[in-house]
Amino acid sequence: MGDALRIALLGCGVVGSQVVRLLDEQAGDLAARVGVPLELAGVAVRRPARHTDLPAGLVTTDAAGLVARGDVDIVVEVIGGIEPVRSLLLDALAGGKSVVSANKALLAEDGATLHDAAAKAGVDLYYEAAVAGAIPLLRPLRESLAGDRITRVIGIVNGTTNFILSRMDATGAGFDEALGEATELGYAEADPTADVDGFDAAAKAAILAGLAFHTRVTASDVYREGIGAVSAADVASAKAMNCTIKLLAICERTRGADGTEQVAVRVHPAMLPRSHPLAGVGDAFNAVFVEADAAGSLMFYGRGAGGAPTASAILGDLVAVARNRVRGSRGTGESSYAALRVQPMGEVTTRYHVALDVADQPGVLAAVAGAFAEQGVSIQTVRQEGRGDAATLVLVTHTATDDALSRTVRHLADMPFVRRAASVMRVEGTVNE
Amino acid sequence: MGDALRIALLGCGVVGSQVVRLLDEQAGDLAARVGVPLELAGVAVRRPARHTDLPAGLVTTDAAGLVARGDVDIVVEVIGGIEPVRSLLLDALAGGKSVVSANKALLAEDGATLHDAAAKAGVDLYYEAAVAGAIPLLRPLRESLAGDRITRVIGIVNGTTNFILSRMDATGAGFDEALGEATELGYAEADPTADVDGFDAAAKAAILAGLAFHTRVTASDVYREGIGAVSAADVASAKAMNCTIKLLAICERTRGADGTEQVAVRVHPAMLPRSHPLAGVGDAFNAVFVEADAAGSLMFYGRGAGGAPTASAILGDLVAVARNRVRGSRGTGESSYAALRVQPMGEVTTRYHVALDVADQPGVLAAVAGAFAEQGVSIQTVRQEGRGDAATLVLVTHTATDDALSRTVRHLADMPFVRRAASVMRVEGTVNE
Repeated sequence: MGDALRIALLGCGVVGSQVVRLLDEQAGDLAARVGVPLELAGVAVRRPARHTDLPAGLVTTDAAGLVARGDVDIVVEVIGGIEPVRSLLLDALAGGKSVVSANKALLAEDGATLHDAAAKAGVDLYYEAAVAGAIPLLRPLRESLAGDRITRVIGIVNGTTNFILSRMDATGAGFDEALGEATELGYAEADPTADVDGFDAAAKAAILAGLAFHTRVTASDVYREGIGAVSAADVASAKAMNCTIKLLAICERTRGADGTEQVAVRVHPAMLPRSHPLAGVGDAFNAVFVEADAAGSLMFYGRGAGGAPTASAILGDLVAVARNRVRGSRGTGESSYAALRVQPMGEVTTRYHVALDVADQPGVLAAVAGAFAEQGVSIQTVRQEGRGDAATLVLVTHTATDDALSRTVRHLADMPFVRRAASVMRVEGTVNE
Repeated sequence: MGDALRIALLGCGVVGSQVVRLLDEQAGDLAARVGVPLELAGVAVRRPARHTDLPAGLVTTDAAGLVARGDVDIVVEVIGGIEPVRSLLLDALAGGKSVVSANKALLAEDGATLHDAAAKAGVDLYYEAAVAGAIPLLRPLRESLAGDRITRVIGIVNGTTNFILSRMDATGAGFDEALGEATELGYAEADPTADVDGFDAAAKAAILAGLAFHTRVTASDVYREGIGAVSAADVASAKAMNCTIKLLAICERTRGADGTEQVAVRVHPAMLPRSHPLAGVGDAFNAVFVEADAAGSLMFYGRGAGGAPTASAILGDLVAVARNRVRGSRGTGESSYAALRVQPMGEVTTRYHVALDVADQPGVLAAVAGAFAEQGVSIQTVRQEGRGDAATLVLVTHTATDDALSRTVRHLADMPFVRRAASVMRVEGTVNE
């Protein structure tokens, strides 16, 4: 067996400590699978005093120094965030080191710079752990479906929000109560903004769209709405339609008004029929549906977060990158030749569910229907529920552009007999009321 | 862009014709993804008169001659069966051509010889399409989970039998009736033996086990029972336990009596709780559950057969193999270093569901319970249903070796008051009655 490949680990929290454990426990198997042993050259951490369980001599606070060392072959990064990580990884790539990263935020914000640096240096940049934890997803998109034409990727890629929405669906709780429960059980962080406001899911959506459509997509290209405004009333409205509410990451091939092929990438809560396979994905699980011309529908399901599952994805990349170094080759790099336009959300066609509290007087339905018609939006179903002198109108539209739909809702809210838009939400999949 | 890579296609039936179509329709994308164009050099068929739609000059009946041509870089095989395909593919590999095959029977019977030939020649042998059609499965097992320890793979990998069992479950039909329906709808072939008797699933199980456990496993190592003996009574018994019957391919890491690590690979119908994610996989779909130490449970779901889905998997392999040739590298080859013993079925621990028609007389339950105890088998539940002078005893056991369980059933059948073993079937997963 040849010389060991030496690994620099940047960061040693929940995920990093599992990487250390697996490198140790699986050492024999990993060596057999790679062809040479994998050895830890060093671990960069902020607070060494917290890592007395690591082998003496491995721990350093000098991440840049560790990355620059001549005896390091592969850099594994589990710190997260943009800087200083971007600089560290660019230094690593420029120095001929291969990189394995779980950093969705960085890949989604500036993957292009990293990919270019990896290509220039002729080394690998792998990041399976950045999306949907242990679920093999990036490799299937990049490799298994490389001969197919992917038309749509729709996924539940954030466990925290899925836990919260699952609780709201199961118990009728409001958002704040469900978030409190998630925090208590450790499913939500002390500052839940990245999850709740959809930033985490949007970064993952950008990465998925880039791979699926061979087009560079950044987090800022992704339309994003979080779940903070989802109310118990929305959940009840969804139930009445035999739907559940999920925070979806949706990446689609679309057509522009001029007929050109474009991509639309968005993250928002949506009503999903309970018969849809994603509707049954509960708690902190992740699942991603992929539709391709030849393959048809595929689904991938598993644990999207957590130390050990994320470490499993990192180790898989590590073995692939190490095998490539042993062979003197490199894996598939970035594929962005298609360079499709990212369609602005206003041009994307979606469907809306709208529940309006209105005065129960003659002519209301006609006026409401007129407001939709004015924007060219067809109504699929209307249901009216009387309640004394007031009524609730529940409308589900056919597809129209998001601009036309949101304009319609704004007009409706201004109508004198509309007391309140009780629930406005996009609808995905086919709904049978 | 560099010179085109030239492809010899062996076979042009349901799958092959879709490969031809996709190579043509996706030519631009495939070239962009590979780095050079992919060109069809020739198509070997048995009856050229049936393929007048193919470009003139491409069709030949001389497969061996096509494989030997100096202008062929990659051989794609969709003929199936052992010979003459094995000889053709060995010639291709020896001649420095990479091979993409959908041939589960050949890979399961003699994959080792093919892998050795590929390694010797330094070329690729890929076969994602051999198992579960379009579902990316072999690449995730071989690459994504390469840093993890897979403990179990359990799948529905044959669409024909899943359709038949789904119909029996939905309508209460007997096996013959459901098979007739499957044949009529084109889900079963005129000679359904390979599917119904479990040969197809056993070949796939051998391939999956080999990849999951880094051990050579052949079809003859796989314990195999088909679904021909599954009766409407079995289906009814399963329903009474809130179970459904599925033909499962099960690959497990086990321990031998001496404590050594072994693998068990089996294909048989089994009762599965309806709460299990595989229980909901209906009709001709495939799904595979994978359990690994760090990753936890993963599920892969999609179309396991059909021309276009299978062609999607072949094209994915083709792109990977072509990229490797462009780079002058090769992908991950066989990994069989673990060389674990394949445990004989008799030593495998399973659980049984047994329904006995017995005379309703005192002492019967005691005698039946004694027969189990004699073989060291614990009973989990017993249910007795009286019917006049006769009764049905329904027993579910705890885990025991398959030998002990089958010996128990043989003893029971010989007991004078046992009129008939109405249903005997293995039980997988946790059952709550």
